[in-house]
Amino acid sequence: MLGVCYYPEHWNEDWWAEDARQMREMGIAYVRIAEFAWSRMEPEPGRYDWAWLDRAIDTLAAEGLKVVLGTPTAAAPKWLIDAHPDVLPVFADGRARGFGSRRHYTAASSTFRAETDRIVTAMAERYGSHEAVVGWQIDNEFGGDDTVLLYGPEDAAGFQDWLKTRYQSVEALNRAWGNVFWSMEFRSFDEVIPPAGQVSDANPAALLDFWRYSSDSLSDYCGLQARILRKHSPGRFITHNFMGFFHQFDHDRLSESLDFCSWDSYPLGKIEHFPLSDSERARWYNTSHPDFSAFHHELYRKLRNDRFWIMEQQPGPVNWAHWNPAPKPGMVRLWGWEALVHGAEVVSYFRWRQVPFAQEQMHAGLTRPDRQLSPGGKEVTRLGRETAEVGALPPIARADVAIVLDYEAAWITTIEPQGADFNYKLLLHRWYEALRRHGINVDVLVPGRSLAGYKLVFVPSMPVVSEAARSAFQETDAHIVFGPRSGSKLQNFAIPDSLPPGPLQAFLPLKVAEVSSLRPGLAIPVSGEALSGTASRWLEQLETALPSRLATEDGQPVMVSSKMASYLGAWLDPALLHALFGRLLDEADIARVEMPEAVRLVRRGNMAVIFNYGPEPYTIPFAARRFLLGNRTIPPQDLAIFETAP
Amino acid sequence: MLGVCYYPEHWNEDWWAEDARQMREMGIAYVRIAEFAWSRMEPEPGRYDWAWLDRAIDTLAAEGLKVVLGTPTAAAPKWLIDAHPDVLPVFADGRARGFGSRRHYTAASSTFRAETDRIVTAMAERYGSHEAVVGWQIDNEFGGDDTVLLYGPEDAAGFQDWLKTRYQSVEALNRAWGNVFWSMEFRSFDEVIPPAGQVSDANPAALLDFWRYSSDSLSDYCGLQARILRKHSPGRFITHNFMGFFHQFDHDRLSESLDFCSWDSYPLGKIEHFPLSDSERARWYNTSHPDFSAFHHELYRKLRNDRFWIMEQQPGPVNWAHWNPAPKPGMVRLWGWEALVHGAEVVSYFRWRQVPFAQEQMHAGLTRPDRQLSPGGKEVTRLGRETAEVGALPPIARADVAIVLDYEAAWITTIEPQGADFNYKLLLHRWYEALRRHGINVDVLVPGRSLAGYKLVFVPSMPVVSEAARSAFQETDAHIVFGPRSGSKLQNFAIPDSLPPGPLQAFLPLKVAEVSSLRPGLAIPVSGEALSGTASRWLEQLETALPSRLATEDGQPVMVSSKMASYLGAWLDPALLHALFGRLLDEADIARVEMPEAVRLVRRGNMAVIFNYGPEPYTIPFAARRFLLGNRTIPPQDLAIFETAP
Amino acid sequence: MLGVCYYPEHWNEDWWAEDARQMREMGIAYVRIAEFAWSRMEPEPGRYDWAWLDRAIDTLAAEGLKVVLGTPTAAAPKWLIDAHPDVLPVFADGRARGFGSRRHYTAASSTFRAETDRIVTAMAERYGSHEAVVGWQIDNEFGGDDTVLLYGPEDAAGFQDWLKTRYQSVEALNRAWGNVFWSMEFRSFDEVIPPAGQVSDANPAALLDFWRYSSDSLSDYCGLQARILRKHSPGRFITHNFMGFFHQFDHDRLSESLDFCSWDSYPLGKIEHFPLSDSERARWYNTSHPDFSAFHHELYRKLRNDRFWIMEQQPGPVNWAHWNPAPKPGMVRLWGWEALVHGAEVVSYFRWRQVPFAQEQMHAGLTRPDRQLSPGGKEVTRLGRETAEVGALPPIARADVAIVLDYEAAWITTIEPQGADFNYKLLLHRWYEALRRHGINVDVLVPGRSLAGYKLVFVPSMPVVSEAARSAFQETDAHIVFGPRSGSKLQNFAIPDSLPPGPLQAFLPLKVAEVSSLRPGLAIPVSGEALSGTASRWLEQLETALPSRLATEDGQPVMVSSKMASYLGAWLDPALLHALFGRLLDEADIARVEMPEAVRLVRRGNMAVIFNYGPEPYTIPFAARRFLLGNRTIPPQDLAIFETAP
Repeated sequence: MLGVCYYPEHWNEDWWAEDARQMREMGIAYVRIAEFAWSRMEPEPGRYDWAWLDRAIDTLAAEGLKVVLGTPTAAAPKWLIDAHPDVLPVFADGRARGFGSRRHYTAASSTFRAETDRIVTAMAERYGSHEAVVGWQIDNEFGGDDTVLLYGPEDAAGFQDWLKTRYQSVEALNRAWGNVFWSMEFRSFDEVIPPAGQVSDANPAALLDFWRYSSDSLSDYCGLQARILRKHSPGRFITHNFMGFFHQFDHDRLSESLDFCSWDSYPLGKIEHFPLSDSERARWYNTSHPDFSAFHHELYRKLRNDRFWIMEQQPGPVNWAHWNPAPKPGMVRLWGWEALVHGAEVVSYFRWRQVPFAQEQMHAGLTRPDRQLSPGGKEVTRLGRETAEVGALPPIARADVAIVLDYEAAWITTIEPQGADFNYKLLLHRWYEALRRHGINVDVLVPGRSLAGYKLVFVPSMPVVSEAARSAFQETDAHIVFGPRSGSKLQNFAIPDSLPPGPLQAFLPLKVAEVSSLRPGLAIPVSGEALSGTASRWLEQLETALPSRLATEDGQPVMVSSKMASYLGAWLDPALLHALFGRLLDEADIARVEMPEAVRLVRRGNMAVIFNYGPEPYTIPFAARRFLLGNRTIPPQDLAIFETAP
Repeated sequence: MLGVCYYPEHWNEDWWAEDARQMREMGIAYVRIAEFAWSRMEPEPGRYDWAWLDRAIDTLAAEGLKVVLGTPTAAAPKWLIDAHPDVLPVFADGRARGFGSRRHYTAASSTFRAETDRIVTAMAERYGSHEAVVGWQIDNEFGGDDTVLLYGPEDAAGFQDWLKTRYQSVEALNRAWGNVFWSMEFRSFDEVIPPAGQVSDANPAALLDFWRYSSDSLSDYCGLQARILRKHSPGRFITHNFMGFFHQFDHDRLSESLDFCSWDSYPLGKIEHFPLSDSERARWYNTSHPDFSAFHHELYRKLRNDRFWIMEQQPGPVNWAHWNPAPKPGMVRLWGWEALVHGAEVVSYFRWRQVPFAQEQMHAGLTRPDRQLSPGGKEVTRLGRETAEVGALPPIARADVAIVLDYEAAWITTIEPQGADFNYKLLLHRWYEALRRHGINVDVLVPGRSLAGYKLVFVPSMPVVSEAARSAFQETDAHIVFGPRSGSKLQNFAIPDSLPPGPLQAFLPLKVAEVSSLRPGLAIPVSGEALSGTASRWLEQLETALPSRLATEDGQPVMVSSKMASYLGAWLDPALLHALFGRLLDEADIARVEMPEAVRLVRRGNMAVIFNYGPEPYTIPFAARRFLLGNRTIPPQDLAIFETAP
Repeated sequence: MLGVCYYPEHWNEDWWAEDARQMREMGIAYVRIAEFAWSRMEPEPGRYDWAWLDRAIDTLAAEGLKVVLGTPTAAAPKWLIDAHPDVLPVFADGRARGFGSRRHYTAASSTFRAETDRIVTAMAERYGSHEAVVGWQIDNEFGGDDTVLLYGPEDAAGFQDWLKTRYQSVEALNRAWGNVFWSMEFRSFDEVIPPAGQVSDANPAALLDFWRYSSDSLSDYCGLQARILRKHSPGRFITHNFMGFFHQFDHDRLSESLDFCSWDSYPLGKIEHFPLSDSERARWYNTSHPDFSAFHHELYRKLRNDRFWIMEQQPGPVNWAHWNPAPKPGMVRLWGWEALVHGAEVVSYFRWRQVPFAQEQMHAGLTRPDRQLSPGGKEVTRLGRETAEVGALPPIARADVAIVLDYEAAWITTIEPQGADFNYKLLLHRWYEALRRHGINVDVLVPGRSLAGYKLVFVPSMPVVSEAARSAFQETDAHIVFGPRSGSKLQNFAIPDSLPPGPLQAFLPLKVAEVSSLRPGLAIPVSGEALSGTASRWLEQLETALPSRLATEDGQPVMVSSKMASYLGAWLDPALLHALFGRLLDEADIARVEMPEAVRLVRRGNMAVIFNYGPEPYTIPFAARRFLLGNRTIPPQDLAIFETAP
């Protein structure tokens, strides 16, 4: 199904009916509205104005469109900030950021929680049972513009409380953090301050706990809204629109109060900001990388109840990346199909019409300020027609292979990179890409989820292995492949007494004796089992009796396997990583099809879908029949949906 | 005529007479003094000491030198700042910058305006009718060190007042800025704050108005000084020394209170800071680029009354660029001649003697701390002799071709670059260079000036087309060539409802349907009419029935012409841009002579002047006779002045 | 002798005895403890707990280990900061940095001086006469994390007092600084503020004096501690652990109160942060550069009493550089030998055991968290055995050649780089490397030390030539080679009236007429006396009757010699610099042996030691006999100690 983000408050009211009609005709079923309209819902403190919103919803409903309402807390009005400047977020430099854009609050503010309670209750009471309203989006893109870690008085007080609960005694806190190190010991929880603004590095254990606390605080804030909505809007779903490649809070914890996750998919903006090489960025500049969207579809699908939406899908150039090209013709349609094939219930475009004023005026919409369809709008029109024709695909089965995304891994490697370019996001991407180039489905899971039924599980890095994660590893029959730094930290950030991989030594009898991080330009030759390539960025020295599968030239083991698991103590070059994973797939008896750099295969039951991101046509090299879309030779920026031979 | 900047307060008084004598002997006629001497004129609050300045002026006058007095407001003394810390400029980070260098005030300060009134009045009363005093320079390099946009309480209050005047009602302001976008609506003008310090991007409409207000505030401050000087110093000229490549305020507006503009010409420092490629910076490191000075001469000549001065001309290495090489031998003389040929009334060198102490001690002068002539001083001595020999050149006629510099274009593309390297300054330079390589005179105009009499007008970019600019376009017979983003914004920064180029659609029936900004390394092939090259940085998709003159490989038009105008929707590579402009010059029947990279031609009536910035001799390829300076073959770093065949 | 840094407070007390035993068995004789244990010595204000430290010292003493106690002032406890936030350091941005790491104080704080007096007195009274305690380390790494230049109220007041003493009258201050320049004149010392936070550049004379004051303030603070320790701990040595490549305070002045200097040697961390090219950084990434450690050994040996210690020596990967590789096998042993050969009395490793918690957990120790020897620990075990076998080497004689390190040169070229990449540290390194590649011993001296007995003295740059330095130059028979910018400034930062090299004109009749700094990529050909190469970064134009030895292509002299001295007015490429120095060594009749890039030779009496940092074996090309260690062919990462032919 298709959806769209709409801002009736931005347009002349006499355009609304025509807009709604056009939406319906394009095959749009869902419309998200209102998430930035606080100043219109409550123009003065306590004076609500619902009339315009009543009319907007009714106008949409009149065309049979279903409405998703956003709570407006991401952009509180000026009068609220003037009355309560204490709600403003204080950054690590000690300065409060002010009014004038969005996300100008800290979730730790008791005032802001009270104001949130008030506006969300009022909105939910008004529309919670409106027939056209089918669900709610809480706030908008939590954490955007680096608003997770905040340092004001209420953040500090909240942190103290959180620590009190976690550690009970200040002695336990001092021990856990190793505060004796530089005489950093506290005599009471009141003495604790958030880790920022020191002369030198803060204690990483303090940083990790502060990140956990901040993530919890945001999650609690989301939960607060969810409780109000559940009370006043029975039977409606609750979701939130997460961002891609954003790991600053624990999405698993935050999404506990949601029915399903949504995410905002901006394939081109993200390729510009992702830490690829410049040549890769140029290679994919107007198509995006073929694993970027797929990864997130799988992540958010598995996160809550095997359901997800795209709440915002890029329809053309955006305004916020360093450079903002137009998508290559065909890509808007392709991205839409890709989301649906990966299981999105709704692909909702941001936004209906390019807005000619304010901050995002260079962001494309499905229509233009002159009310004509944009190039992207034309592709979505075609997509709407095609999806109706193709109909439902078979359900998505559990894949043979899973990869694990660990939010704490992102925090820990940011807190203590040890090598300046150890980027967890990129490591995860490289592993996922190396797998998908084998033409297999790959589920994306967070730590602690059951791994039953998988044949192979990949864990690019998991410094802290929680009890839940350990159980899941123990209880699966899958062979588990751990990447560098896995098991290298205890819950309190400390190195295990038995050295890394600590708790994983139960499966992998080895010790990481020493670690080298390597500056750009250094590439250490690595080979074994007829494979060869290089390690860069990160190389561990493994002490183990396990036979070495990959080793450096002087025989230092780089990759070893036990019966239950493998450990890869290096950052490998992409080609070697891909070849190594092929070897492991073969060992696990998982069928694979080599994919070109720009082509990807997704299977749904007996159906297969192939996406061609590249500049050359791709001819399917295996048996295919009954094409629902496309045919055996897939043009650039196109796809085919077909039944595979039984 | 030649001039020099002199600081009698820096030297032993018994050197003054000898300095003055030497100046006169070098052919110097004008001496600027006193613009940093407030602490000597008023050593204690309210206690003036004019005796030393009386003697200094008299000493200069005794040698027949004419004096230009600078008002000393760019460097207020410590006692003033200690008494009135509210005059200090507050930067976007919320911190006031303090005493210890210069420009430590905001023009919005009522206290500083009062103090300015006091010291300027006192100075003007004292010297306004002194026989040797022929003119005034107000303050020094307005806006230097990023002091245009300031954020203190008085800046904020001034902004509110300015907005009240412009919009009358807060509802109009909210509408103009599109404040509904993220609930940014204000309930009264008192709620408005300067756009800085938000969590995310500020509203670009607010930023543009804040820039306009700040430019106006500085202009008002200049006007305040001008009014005092006109009252107390009748018959003396008033000028200000502007900086090169500085677009942070509207020079047209600010210079309204002046008799003519002056500018400070530092060819080498500027090449180091200009956004050229590193290889270009290396190419021109000790000569500067042959279009840098010329552009500014033409700009400031046309800005007020077809008159301008060079108030500060670089005589040797400076101290303030990242790297500071000595000028290549010959260049100091060449730059001086170039300024005079472009119409400078006076070329005044900064400074008489290299000062051995304080901030600028690595800045060369005409003489050295050991009182000998510097290498530059020797070249200026020759220049003085030569100018006397050559005598007056014919007046400068209106050129056939004009290029338009739009200050708001600089602000708008800074506020909303959309592509990180969309640099208006560089775009302007590329267009000017592409034209000058055809050996033609090019006038530089600001928007709204009459275009009557020109054959071709080039507008590299003009996002907002003011009513005055539109009238000028309408009323000229010239063919007008618009570059990317022209007409893309309304006065309130909004995109026109009819899409860009908005008001220009009256001349150019087209719509810019979509824009791609392109990261470095991307170059899109472009060709047409036997021309070919690439677009980089910026590429617009044009929707039009006009025939395409340049197009991408898939036929998307990049440049189109109507009868009245042309539109170029891309950032072209320099060679293609040059070739394209050659085509347009031919169509307009404008004679041209292909110039090598390092050679430029300027015509004054029947005389021509050729400047050779390059490392190779240049032989004039066309008829030339009666050489006033040089001859047919021009050595490196040299020039020739000659009569062209009739 | 070997030593180690140990933190008993980090470990279970029941590990202490075993740790001590293992230390002794490895050949360790000295143990530094307690320098970060304030919160354990004084857990509450005024309540001391010595019991644990008594037991720790006794446990070490029981194994015959000698103890060096560190005063704990580098890390004051939270309760002190909460009670006295005025001790916190205020940085140039005006913000105080807070508690949570270390060095969170300003030495100008009267409160912190009082607290220091209290804790150091208490500690010295307790342990000053303990039999096992042989010496003291004051504080830890003064100046670390940029804590030399601080800007709080007490720093400002201290600066005013310091200026009062130096200049006596404010008129003298104004004259010395040239405050007339931009009306920066003060009416009294109370008006003076530290030079930070201006709109534009601060007065460089003010910056230099502020740097001198800050260096003095830190030195006074060190002296305060030394006086207490001398009083309460008679017969014990006092030292401080300086950092490598750290020039932010005058180590000569600060070490006046010490018995000898120690330094902390981190060869790999430093190669990563040193301004070499990336290819050089990659070349030496896991060995370090062969001149880095040697330079500092020589510097700290000559600084106080021809004695020095390595207080912290790198035993494996560190945690604080951008990238942190493991040392190449063999290098830990080699670095240890190298320090001893250069005269270190003790090489003390940081640290005994890798700490599994807090900020430095990725920093290797001699043992690992699992209590096994680390790879480095194994090499140190071998080193301990070998040093016992080899026994004492002959004493180190004065070298024929000295190089002068001038702390004020580092400050002045930082304050006024004039070319963005004029890096004094790198210049010094290039000169030292160029000399050592000739296989000679090179003493490192600070300005003002006697130069008697040297044949050749190299001064890479000395902008201010103090009276003491001038005398030393005058009184030596050595030929002195001055590099660029030498003599370019007077004590008050001003350019000499006679132009640079000012006071050096007594030896070198020349004037630096003009200076060019050159952006990267520019290389000016230079040649003379059958040598050729290029100048980059910096090139001076010399006016002199002395014959030119090296000149540019247009004949401008670059290097000239008088009978007493030479002047080199350029930054030469390394190969030309090396060849030029070879010529000068030959002229001074100093025997030399050409060394490969990675090999270095050190002589002690009739013994020679060769260190091979490189990847290839090195065969000694001259007569060698009686090998105490190694033999004629030296493997990679190894050394040989042998007697040279008589």
